[in-house]
Amino acid sequence: MDLQTLQSRVFADIAQFIGNRRGYAFLARADNMVAVTNGLDHQDHELLQESIANRYPVTISIGIGTGEEPIAALEDATNQIQTVGSAQDQSRREVLAGITRKRTTSRDVQIAHFDVNNATSRYTDQLNAFDSFIVIQRAYATLMQHLREQYSGLSFFVGGDNIISIVPEITTDDYQEIIQYVASTAEVNLKVGVGCGSDAAEAGISAKYALETCRHREIAIHINDDGVNLSSKEV
Amino acid sequence: MDLQTLQSRVFADIAQFIGNRRGYAFLARADNMVAVTNGLDHQDHELLQESIANRYPVTISIGIGTGEEPIAALEDATNQIQTVGSAQDQSRREVLAGITRKRTTSRDVQIAHFDVNNATSRYTDQLNAFDSFIVIQRAYATLMQHLREQYSGLSFFVGGDNIISIVPEITTDDYQEIIQYVASTAEVNLKVGVGCGSDAAEAGISAKYALETCRHREIAIHINDDGVNLSSKEV
Amino acid sequence: MDLQTLQSRVFADIAQFIGNRRGYAFLARADNMVAVTNGLDHQDHELLQESIANRYPVTISIGIGTGEEPIAALEDATNQIQTVGSAQDQSRREVLAGITRKRTTSRDVQIAHFDVNNATSRYTDQLNAFDSFIVIQRAYATLMQHLREQYSGLSFFVGGDNIISIVPEITTDDYQEIIQYVASTAEVNLKVGVGCGSDAAEAGISAKYALETCRHREIAIHINDDGVNLSSKEV
Amino acid sequence: MDLQTLQSRVFADIAQFIGNRRGYAFLARADNMVAVTNGLDHQDHELLQESIANRYPVTISIGIGTGEEPIAALEDATNQIQTVGSAQDQSRREVLAGITRKRTTSRDVQIAHFDVNNATSRYTDQLNAFDSFIVIQRAYATLMQHLREQYSGLSFFVGGDNIISIVPEITTDDYQEIIQYVASTAEVNLKVGVGCGSDAAEAGISAKYALETCRHREIAIHINDDGVNLSSKEV
Repeated sequence: MDLQTLQSRVFADIAQFIGNRRGYAFLARADNMVAVTNGLDHQDHELLQESIANRYPVTISIGIGTGEEPIAALEDATNQIQTVGSAQDQSRREVLAGITRKRTTSRDVQIAHFDVNNATSRYTDQLNAFDSFIVIQRAYATLMQHLREQYSGLSFFVGGDNIISIVPEITTDDYQEIIQYVASTAEVNLKVGVGCGSDAAEAGISAKYALETCRHREIAIHINDDGVNLSSKEV
Repeated sequence: MDLQTLQSRVFADIAQFIGNRRGYAFLARADNMVAVTNGLDHQDHELLQESIANRYPVTISIGIGTGEEPIAALEDATNQIQTVGSAQDQSRREVLAGITRKRTTSRDVQIAHFDVNNATSRYTDQLNAFDSFIVIQRAYATLMQHLREQYSGLSFFVGGDNIISIVPEITTDDYQEIIQYVASTAEVNLKVGVGCGSDAAEAGISAKYALETCRHREIAIHINDDGVNLSSKEV
Repeated sequence: MDLQTLQSRVFADIAQFIGNRRGYAFLARADNMVAVTNGLDHQDHELLQESIANRYPVTISIGIGTGEEPIAALEDATNQIQTVGSAQDQSRREVLAGITRKRTTSRDVQIAHFDVNNATSRYTDQLNAFDSFIVIQRAYATLMQHLREQYSGLSFFVGGDNIISIVPEITTDDYQEIIQYVASTAEVNLKVGVGCGSDAAEAGISAKYALETCRHREIAIHINDDGVNLSSKEV
Repeated sequence: MDLQTLQSRVFADIAQFIGNRRGYAFLARADNMVAVTNGLDHQDHELLQESIANRYPVTISIGIGTGEEPIAALEDATNQIQTVGSAQDQSRREVLAGITRKRTTSRDVQIAHFDVNNATSRYTDQLNAFDSFIVIQRAYATLMQHLREQYSGLSFFVGGDNIISIVPEITTDDYQEIIQYVASTAEVNLKVGVGCGSDAAEAGISAKYALETCRHREIAIHINDDGVNLSSKEV
């Protein structure tokens, strides 16, 4: 259990550090985390790396990547680390590689926030805790693979019945296709709110409001066309 | 990100509390955690609940269940909480229900520890970080559903390429069927070490040694027939 | 600041571990902590040491001592570590030395809980934050030295205006002398509640109730003669 | 012990937040912390307050003050909170008052880093852990009061045998007077390194290097006249 505790605390510290600089961090495989760090500069990444090394019995390597599509940025980031050596090389320690990019537009980051329709009444209160967890994991595994293969997006389960995806600009029709695919393949009905911004915090809040709009209007898809929530498309 | 941090730290504290009493805790949905608490008594569960309430802005409800099979124990535990009210009722706060059982035999808990064959060389060093994560999540979603439906076991992803399952006593043939099912359905090759004990720590360590045996002997399944590792079956 | 964070978190973990086994831990010099671990056995101390080593970039040495008086127990504990080598020897790492003692009587641990009379109205709301802190530190430095030299007790500042002392059985007259000494030397008026028990948690709660009694009755000293608060002496 | 754990963790989080923005935070009374936040703006302070409220069962009030001398800045900060109400008013919650100031010169913050001469050989390895702690607390109580009354500086014990003081620009003769006062009053010999900078991190590192210079040259006082350590005065 010490390893579980250690992973959780390292993640909590990374989430705090990046989160209070307007980025988002995801636990992913736990020995391998993914973060959206638009707005952080090289020095910020270096400080995080140093601070973890000072306070934990482990060190972290950081690859920084950018790209038009989320998966391209992630591939760039992964390459920065993989070219230095295998994950199990003793010599590959505390790599910090790659180039940060300044904020450019108010649409630098796009986030889609998915959740399960009526999760509490349909699953949490009906099924035992494990069976409702299976439903959500099945939906997640299906969504993450489909969104990555068809749309180059990255999806992360963030607790409860919530999945947050880093996405390129895709259309309402695309989201309809995605939701139908998950419904037919994993037999789970999702809804989604979409937002954008110059950093992850702005895009994420916009997406969260969009998801609230879905709940109020009982619709499946709502896209905030800009961070300030003035116009929107829906289904 | 504050919510992510909070969930991770609450889990880290629960993992420490239960872990240093020889139990195992799993993050599961994060708003809903599952633990194997054989060996903890009612007062231990109460102390954990009180300590979380004292130090976090949230409270926890705990349902305690027992059963011949893992899923039966979990259903019992879930029922203890669900009968009090919906997860979203304001009045359902800090429930502590159910009855603990003393350690009875040296086989009270059975644990199967799965990992992915050659995960580092085949995935971590070859694919980008997200694509190797997809592979593992797909294996996990497949394994958790199959093991639950066919064998009444509970599986939890614990980071890296590791999945820990709480299982009833099943045979080497059963594990072979499970591994083949995951290989054909999710296209991922797993191996598994199995151990038992009077509590989760004992069973978990036995399972971990069994998995090491698989690595050394290049076999797919190893069952430690008892906690002290004297006899074993393999494939 | 990383070192401050590390010290605080290591202490928080030690306080949780020992606290939920009915002991008390004190930060002291931060690189050197003191705990009352009546009721914990050798294995408990070993588990704490191992768990810190697993999760932090530092290791801890633990000396365990017992004695009729608190200072004798502490000297025993310190000797266990000092005989192994200097605090700056590279080779002195993860020492675990000394012998635990089982709970014997309901009076094994005696705790005196001091606070400053009317601290909020007289200092916190009147003086700036630093000047009220000076007052409390002056009272603490005076009390800790006097109680140690005259009565062999150990005092620890625990935040706010609270000082917790591990004491031998001393009389109401002794406490009166102590309070007068601090009043004349440091110009701060203290009150004190005293309790005993078979472990630190029991004695500490009894002392806390005794201090509440002082507040209600507007008296300076209250001694709970037993853990269950049946009889008491006061001034 | 839950309260001790909570205080330590809240402090650890504040220390991390402020520390990785180049400020310094001190535990002080634990229910009342002091930080040097030169370089942080109003929004930073607000974010810290919000983040603590989101993750702990307590909220924090923040008063921000500035001044030519450290004590003046602290009085300003305290006033911002005290004018809103007593520390025990239910209505005084999450105050955020006062005005931040931008970095102005490379000498905005001056830090003096004191430690005890030969602490390990003279005290830690000779005395029991509590008696060496008494020595350090006595030195601290004496220094903090003298430096505040005579020189308007603020001193904080930061663990081990280290005291960090926020000071105005005072001379080598002043430091000589301070060290002699502590030696004659508390019978403890200190040495001190002094540094300045546009923020606490810069001044603190400069002071730390100055203290290292004292150790190497076996002198009692070393002042780095600028953050980049080009010239210096010594005794």
